[in-house]
Amino acid sequence: MTAFSPRPVVSKPASKSASPESNVTVGNLPPADSQKRVSEWMKSFQDRVCQGLEEADGVGKFQQDAWERPEGGGGRSRVMRDGNVFEQGGVNFSEVWGDQLPPSILAQRPEAAGHSFYATGTSMVLHPKNPHIPTVHLNYRYFEAGPVWWFGGGIDLTPFYPVEEDVVHFHKTLKEACDRHNPEYYNTFKLWCDEYFYLKHRDETRGVGGIFFDYQDNSGTLYPLSYPGSQADTVAADYAEKVGPVADRSWEDVFSFSQSCGLAFLPSYTPIVQKRKNTKYGDRERNFQLYRRGRYVEFNLVYDRGTIFGLQTNGRTESILMSLPPLVRWEYNYQPEPGSPEARLYEIFLKPQDWVNWKG
Amino acid sequence: MTAFSPRPVVSKPASKSASPESNVTVGNLPPADSQKRVSEWMKSFQDRVCQGLEEADGVGKFQQDAWERPEGGGGRSRVMRDGNVFEQGGVNFSEVWGDQLPPSILAQRPEAAGHSFYATGTSMVLHPKNPHIPTVHLNYRYFEAGPVWWFGGGIDLTPFYPVEEDVVHFHKTLKEACDRHNPEYYNTFKLWCDEYFYLKHRDETRGVGGIFFDYQDNSGTLYPLSYPGSQADTVAADYAEKVGPVADRSWEDVFSFSQSCGLAFLPSYTPIVQKRKNTKYGDRERNFQLYRRGRYVEFNLVYDRGTIFGLQTNGRTESILMSLPPLVRWEYNYQPEPGSPEARLYEIFLKPQDWVNWKG
Repeated sequence: MTAFSPRPVVSKPASKSASPESNVTVGNLPPADSQKRVSEWMKSFQDRVCQGLEEADGVGKFQQDAWERPEGGGGRSRVMRDGNVFEQGGVNFSEVWGDQLPPSILAQRPEAAGHSFYATGTSMVLHPKNPHIPTVHLNYRYFEAGPVWWFGGGIDLTPFYPVEEDVVHFHKTLKEACDRHNPEYYNTFKLWCDEYFYLKHRDETRGVGGIFFDYQDNSGTLYPLSYPGSQADTVAADYAEKVGPVADRSWEDVFSFSQSCGLAFLPSYTPIVQKRKNTKYGDRERNFQLYRRGRYVEFNLVYDRGTIFGLQTNGRTESILMSLPPLVRWEYNYQPEPGSPEARLYEIFLKPQDWVNWKG
Repeated sequence: MTAFSPRPVVSKPASKSASPESNVTVGNLPPADSQKRVSEWMKSFQDRVCQGLEEADGVGKFQQDAWERPEGGGGRSRVMRDGNVFEQGGVNFSEVWGDQLPPSILAQRPEAAGHSFYATGTSMVLHPKNPHIPTVHLNYRYFEAGPVWWFGGGIDLTPFYPVEEDVVHFHKTLKEACDRHNPEYYNTFKLWCDEYFYLKHRDETRGVGGIFFDYQDNSGTLYPLSYPGSQADTVAADYAEKVGPVADRSWEDVFSFSQSCGLAFLPSYTPIVQKRKNTKYGDRERNFQLYRRGRYVEFNLVYDRGTIFGLQTNGRTESILMSLPPLVRWEYNYQPEPGSPEARLYEIFLKPQDWVNWKG
């Protein structure tokens, strides 16, 4: 990897660079070693996740590729293939910097225009072999650009043959992590996740959701309503009523929250792996899993802002698209048989539900 | 299908609605029955293509779904599955209308803002079973919106284990169709195709190209340089030097050219099917085909304007995504073995080449 980037210089005073509507208090700058602290956390988090997944798999091991980005930065991509549990799993750490954020992000953070940026994060997608084990995705990231900084990320679960107690366990574990920081977090970021991981052209959520957040800084605004990736206008409109401002947060508060979310992953997911890894399946379940993986591809290539950011910033394509499943099926006009387990997925689990209070 | 749409009214005189820079001479309006004539051609073209493909397959038959679009219009989707030659093939006719074109098109045709639109077209993607037969895609379409109208479309070939004589045959057949109308067409639209079917994040063309054009109207401009889907800036810059204006064309001229392109499809492709359908293949070739099909998915979901137009205008998702292959593989960091047939694909066929004059 090339030399560590200098911190982007805050070249304009806050009163000029921040728009009057902005909630960003630039007086509350990140600590001097913010980039180093976050990237070291992201790396140690990658290590921890890989170790936990190797233990859960029992056989598969991660192989690492370290890579450099010509314009600045690099990363380490780790892939497990043909494990006992995981058909393919990728856990990526990256750290990139450059002269200017791409237009899709500048539209949301106009204060960053004309400033260099720094971004670091860890992302993960696991494609288990057994269709009774859900696919899971995670991504935590941090940005600095001129006067602004923010944390983003989330985690979401995509089952094929879901078991309700697993879904409830997953959401409760995330809620506990959120609640340690702010009682508003889980509800807000659960809703945001349902909105974000929504395939408009299918009128389906990607799976049973989880939590998702972006642009979390020292302001009191949890959900910026102008969020450009917003897919479901009706859900977005709900926020205006449901989500009020929270008390101001420091950089340390938001970083600490992001870490708690990351640490919640293994306990939210590995118990599901243990419970379902020996459930029998046949061609029917496998074919349905391959078909549903197509939705994962559709989401990642059409909507996912992480993918779009990576491709727009000349990221490493193989690392960005490592999230795509190893084998996928499309079938024209497939409809699940009424009353089947496949139909149950569509009827219950591909719509937003209140999983923490789920009574069935 | 709901009742036929009324022709969008040209509500402003040309001098007001067309910008001073516009090349569109609105005085040259389409004939009064333009929509009916083009949509009937598109339907008869769909019939002809399906019949030719059933003959080429020998076993497979197309099944039709007719559908309606709630906002106006509809179509008929035809799919062949598990044929002798074609693992899956889809041929779609559609005809849609509405109050306003989506922003992506209005950016290119600002004169259409505030006007209702009409669009009709036929599109096709074939995924053969045998990896020695190329995948092929075709799409011809027609738009009217207020003072503007245009034809667009093209055809491109995506081989896995290409044979040079097949590629030359394909391009020569297209060139002959183009040359009957204008000596500039083939070179211009071949370059445009190389530019359009380019995967920037892979630095690969999708296949060996063919022809592609859009916004063809009664102006003398073949290639509008501000074309927003442009992927390869260097190629776009080349146009400014290579492509001059052609003599003004009438609506009939452009419609006739579009029909000639459509009619060139069967003779450009079915001889390749006949020559290669009995070539033996094994797991290696099949696995490579499934892997390369992933690029098709990446192109269609990330770049393809037909797909994006369909999803943006609330088109029928199953018909739009019928182009996606029935089975696809992704493999992290795959590199073809040096000197292998797979490496030859990358080295020769995934770069723009002068196929009509190809000497090998």
